[in-house]
Amino acid sequence: MIVVIKKDQEKKQVQNLISWVEKLGLKVHLSEGENTTIIGLVGDTSKVDIDLIRTLDIVESVTRVQEPYKNANRKFHPADSIIDVNSCKFGGNHFQIIAGPCSIESEKQVIEVAMACKKAGATLLRGGAFKPRTSPYSFQGMGVDGLKLLKKAKAETGLPIVTEIMSEEHIDDFEGVDVMQVGARNMQNFDLLKRLGKLKTPILLKRGIAATIEEWLMSAEYIMSEGNPNVILCERGIRTYETYTRNTLDLSAIPVLKERTHLPVIVDPSHALGISRFVKPMSLASVGAGADGLMIEVHNDPAHALCDGAQSLRPEQFEDVVTSLRAMLPAVGKELN
Amino acid sequence: MIVVIKKDQEKKQVQNLISWVEKLGLKVHLSEGENTTIIGLVGDTSKVDIDLIRTLDIVESVTRVQEPYKNANRKFHPADSIIDVNSCKFGGNHFQIIAGPCSIESEKQVIEVAMACKKAGATLLRGGAFKPRTSPYSFQGMGVDGLKLLKKAKAETGLPIVTEIMSEEHIDDFEGVDVMQVGARNMQNFDLLKRLGKLKTPILLKRGIAATIEEWLMSAEYIMSEGNPNVILCERGIRTYETYTRNTLDLSAIPVLKERTHLPVIVDPSHALGISRFVKPMSLASVGAGADGLMIEVHNDPAHALCDGAQSLRPEQFEDVVTSLRAMLPAVGKELN
Amino acid sequence: MIVVIKKDQEKKQVQNLISWVEKLGLKVHLSEGENTTIIGLVGDTSKVDIDLIRTLDIVESVTRVQEPYKNANRKFHPADSIIDVNSCKFGGNHFQIIAGPCSIESEKQVIEVAMACKKAGATLLRGGAFKPRTSPYSFQGMGVDGLKLLKKAKAETGLPIVTEIMSEEHIDDFEGVDVMQVGARNMQNFDLLKRLGKLKTPILLKRGIAATIEEWLMSAEYIMSEGNPNVILCERGIRTYETYTRNTLDLSAIPVLKERTHLPVIVDPSHALGISRFVKPMSLASVGAGADGLMIEVHNDPAHALCDGAQSLRPEQFEDVVTSLRAMLPAVGKELN
Amino acid sequence: MIVVIKKDQEKKQVQNLISWVEKLGLKVHLSEGENTTIIGLVGDTSKVDIDLIRTLDIVESVTRVQEPYKNANRKFHPADSIIDVNSCKFGGNHFQIIAGPCSIESEKQVIEVAMACKKAGATLLRGGAFKPRTSPYSFQGMGVDGLKLLKKAKAETGLPIVTEIMSEEHIDDFEGVDVMQVGARNMQNFDLLKRLGKLKTPILLKRGIAATIEEWLMSAEYIMSEGNPNVILCERGIRTYETYTRNTLDLSAIPVLKERTHLPVIVDPSHALGISRFVKPMSLASVGAGADGLMIEVHNDPAHALCDGAQSLRPEQFEDVVTSLRAMLPAVGKELN
Repeated sequence: MIVVIKKDQEKKQVQNLISWVEKLGLKVHLSEGENTTIIGLVGDTSKVDIDLIRTLDIVESVTRVQEPYKNANRKFHPADSIIDVNSCKFGGNHFQIIAGPCSIESEKQVIEVAMACKKAGATLLRGGAFKPRTSPYSFQGMGVDGLKLLKKAKAETGLPIVTEIMSEEHIDDFEGVDVMQVGARNMQNFDLLKRLGKLKTPILLKRGIAATIEEWLMSAEYIMSEGNPNVILCERGIRTYETYTRNTLDLSAIPVLKERTHLPVIVDPSHALGISRFVKPMSLASVGAGADGLMIEVHNDPAHALCDGAQSLRPEQFEDVVTSLRAMLPAVGKELN
Repeated sequence: MIVVIKKDQEKKQVQNLISWVEKLGLKVHLSEGENTTIIGLVGDTSKVDIDLIRTLDIVESVTRVQEPYKNANRKFHPADSIIDVNSCKFGGNHFQIIAGPCSIESEKQVIEVAMACKKAGATLLRGGAFKPRTSPYSFQGMGVDGLKLLKKAKAETGLPIVTEIMSEEHIDDFEGVDVMQVGARNMQNFDLLKRLGKLKTPILLKRGIAATIEEWLMSAEYIMSEGNPNVILCERGIRTYETYTRNTLDLSAIPVLKERTHLPVIVDPSHALGISRFVKPMSLASVGAGADGLMIEVHNDPAHALCDGAQSLRPEQFEDVVTSLRAMLPAVGKELN
Repeated sequence: MIVVIKKDQEKKQVQNLISWVEKLGLKVHLSEGENTTIIGLVGDTSKVDIDLIRTLDIVESVTRVQEPYKNANRKFHPADSIIDVNSCKFGGNHFQIIAGPCSIESEKQVIEVAMACKKAGATLLRGGAFKPRTSPYSFQGMGVDGLKLLKKAKAETGLPIVTEIMSEEHIDDFEGVDVMQVGARNMQNFDLLKRLGKLKTPILLKRGIAATIEEWLMSAEYIMSEGNPNVILCERGIRTYETYTRNTLDLSAIPVLKERTHLPVIVDPSHALGISRFVKPMSLASVGAGADGLMIEVHNDPAHALCDGAQSLRPEQFEDVVTSLRAMLPAVGKELN
Repeated sequence: MIVVIKKDQEKKQVQNLISWVEKLGLKVHLSEGENTTIIGLVGDTSKVDIDLIRTLDIVESVTRVQEPYKNANRKFHPADSIIDVNSCKFGGNHFQIIAGPCSIESEKQVIEVAMACKKAGATLLRGGAFKPRTSPYSFQGMGVDGLKLLKKAKAETGLPIVTEIMSEEHIDDFEGVDVMQVGARNMQNFDLLKRLGKLKTPILLKRGIAATIEEWLMSAEYIMSEGNPNVILCERGIRTYETYTRNTLDLSAIPVLKERTHLPVIVDPSHALGISRFVKPMSLASVGAGADGLMIEVHNDPAHALCDGAQSLRPEQFEDVVTSLRAMLPAVGKELN
């Protein structure tokens, strides 16, 4: 960490800062120029509160040289992490497709969708039982009953299952769930993250709607620092000023993450744009950008669904996406499963 | 709600939509023009999932006429809500100043700061016991022990106390706390909001770092719809592209909120900018914009603090802010307490 | 356009609005419900100032049904526009690669880079002569002399040339330039756009750094409404809160644009992220998203360049990108040239 | 400028960088630690292209210690600049109110509004002759004829006049205009800025809709570095994700600017929010934040205007704002004129 001191500051103030830093166990390199005094902090600076230093009156600027994340940092773990979910591998040259309905509605629905997804090429099944909704008046999901139906679909199809957890109070009900998803709104629910860090179950950590890449990795760090190394990152669009799309899918984040962390990164194109006809191009774009997988919403019953064309794909549309994906994967050195 | 249908859609699809809407108990006005078909939905549209309709293939656009919040809506509650916290009133022509340290560190510290704040004009005391931190390696607060010290400071000074709750699991420890704060990162932790809605304790609901005003009001609605009408909104800066300030304090939100909701709105200028020397101008600006109060960080022990000038004000600086505030309040028709 | 009137407004005010709208040549559909009055405006609403109506006291909300752009609108021109630049075709199933140095520095440099780019597969040559720079103290480009060198490189290689124009005062010097580029900062320099609309030369219109897709199309409309139909759109990253990348490349914009406009859309991955090692993944992602081409910075002289690894690719790196691109193009139904 | 080199880089690459920097006339401090090499650049680093260095493969990070602006920098000009516009002073303890119609429509209109504004307390008159409009189909202003009418209003009332210039081609027509305004969309039209830098007329430089404070000051620097020191900054709202307001008025920018630059800063609350009933609270907030003036839209003819309540204030509403302003100014140590 490099701290630049403002011109003409009292020596005593500078010395206070140095003493405080040394008490944290860091070595200090002091370089005094005519106009500028620079303090280099050497050691494990992840403990240092950069915001605190930045707000000191004597400080001009602070630059972090070392990233504040350790377990998630590729520097200390150069090889890709391969996360194994019932033999579905995330990371390296593997590619996974998680598919299924947004919400679990009935046994028939979830099993039929699961079968259709499997047939079309999905390697894991998703389905929402606990649904985070902006409005208290919207459907909040089937809850524990939904989890049971999802587990039936797993038994039926053999597909590992992925579903969202919203509160540490529900953790026992998630026994048998293969991947526990933390939604965008809970990315900084630190009590929940710490609790999940005590498990070994793989955690799918969605990016907060306005989270920086660094904050996202720090949330992964919360889970990993408690002992659970199995974190899969999921880009799902960020909030920008643009209104023609619900969110802006930040595919630039993928090569950036690939450089900074060894964790696998997948993309959820269904939620990012909120419009089913954009799922295919953004799925192919994700492959090009280097993603390790996709999470796609599929429903199977257009006759009873509200109308054709909600955010979800019909199975045949999903199959078309999978076919195009397969054709592109060799160009980026990946293969499905 | 106004739904505009795309040109040349199948009648059957349009009819499906109408039937579905009618099942939700809404009346439908259908207006078919040469080029455009418009469907007006009349009734309680807060149950309708606007995102779902927006993504239908046959739909061109959807406009909500009625806001999705009810309890928080000024239309149904034209007078300002006055929320009484041990005789400190929030709303109407009242103005409150909540002050105190960012974190509770020791009994001596919190009581001395509390006395200094009270003397300078603060009407409530704040102090952090549970601290949400981006990094798992940063100080996470004194927890339950911190709460005890804060309650001592309350006993000593008579000031009502405000402190943050991060998980529904801690709720019993908050007995005796006068205002429970929900931090920006938990603004959409819906399980926590629902739990707090079952209490009568006033809730200080901070705006999420990238929350729209509507989402913020919907989070207030989560609390209110469970039975707790005592919600105080707190603007604390939003995330933008600007980097010279930590966040952008959105004071435009105040007159907008005053029009849309009857709930009181206060401002936290300390966290928004992260720099103590900007607290005074932004406090005065908040008064001008029509805020019902302020929440300001104050510490009392610059000798042992890291250095002069962290994000917090010293008591004499805080007193200077209060003096200027008092001079401005009459111009906006408000008074301190 | 749908105008929703607030509850309980004076009839006279509503009538004023209707009269004013009718004077603009629009037909009005008035629908009065118990709680809501809705005014539908039918006809060419592109002349109506939506912001003006939105700010009226009696108005609750306004929804535009018809887009405000006409010439650029796919509704009125369903087939893809194919823009022919000296036989390089933009749009449809064609794919073009524009490559070359950021700035033109010398005859030797530009010709060598041009040859290397051509050899590696580039179909057009780019090079900056007039450089928009944030700082008045940065190199502002070689200006007219740079244009001359670029034309020599065109003569030498046969590649059509693309370069940026910053002011209508330079227009005569651009004789012989095949594509005139409008930079992000000038996307709403309306005097310049109108002047370029009087030419027939294809215009490469970069997206403003915080422009909405609609504003971008309206800037295309400025050019087209003056008589020049040859507009190529270029996505180059938008401004967000994220700091790990210079800008956020908005690839979601590509399928959105493909639906809304018939104009070709290309991507500039070099400027968006500002880091050469991210050019390859974002180029492949652009192909997946459906782009009609790419614009990539290439330099040829690493020995004399500042150091290896600036934002530009070396020719062999560029060749590697082209090779991977070619492998992916069939999957999206496109071919190079 | 502090350049941190990545671990384990070739000495030769580092030496290349150092040699290049030294050629720019800068001194270099090299500090080699076990894990990190740091290069400090001392001298006039405003010539150094920070983006170029940031993208080098060997570079971990770059921090600018010295701001890239010089003429606008308070460090080199500690006292407030006072800009005198026909005896109306901007800066220091002065406060100015610029008022008038959005667009000039007729002689009668502009003179009547001017008289009303003057009577209510305005100290300068504004009016748009050249109007930058997102749509080519919207009214583009009366142009040169509008300028003539504005000059008549100046002759009639004695108020100095402020109006927008959109292209360097119109500069001769602005003879007699007291303050030339550069709109948000042209903030980085560098050819225009350089041309205005050759005048002595005060320039009102609006912030670009997504400009950082630093970019804004660099645009001021473009004007000042050509010889015109008379720049007045005008905050007018920035683009964020929030949709309840047109833009987010960034009042935090005022104290930040006051620290960084000696130039006066005013606020335009009319355009920022786009809604007349929010003009008063945001005007008072601007005073609290420390602004040196306001620019407010006023129209005088509600009977013939479209309806009551457009974005502009009526004269009596404007007078009410001025009255409240006057009551607040002493609290911030300022006075009207």
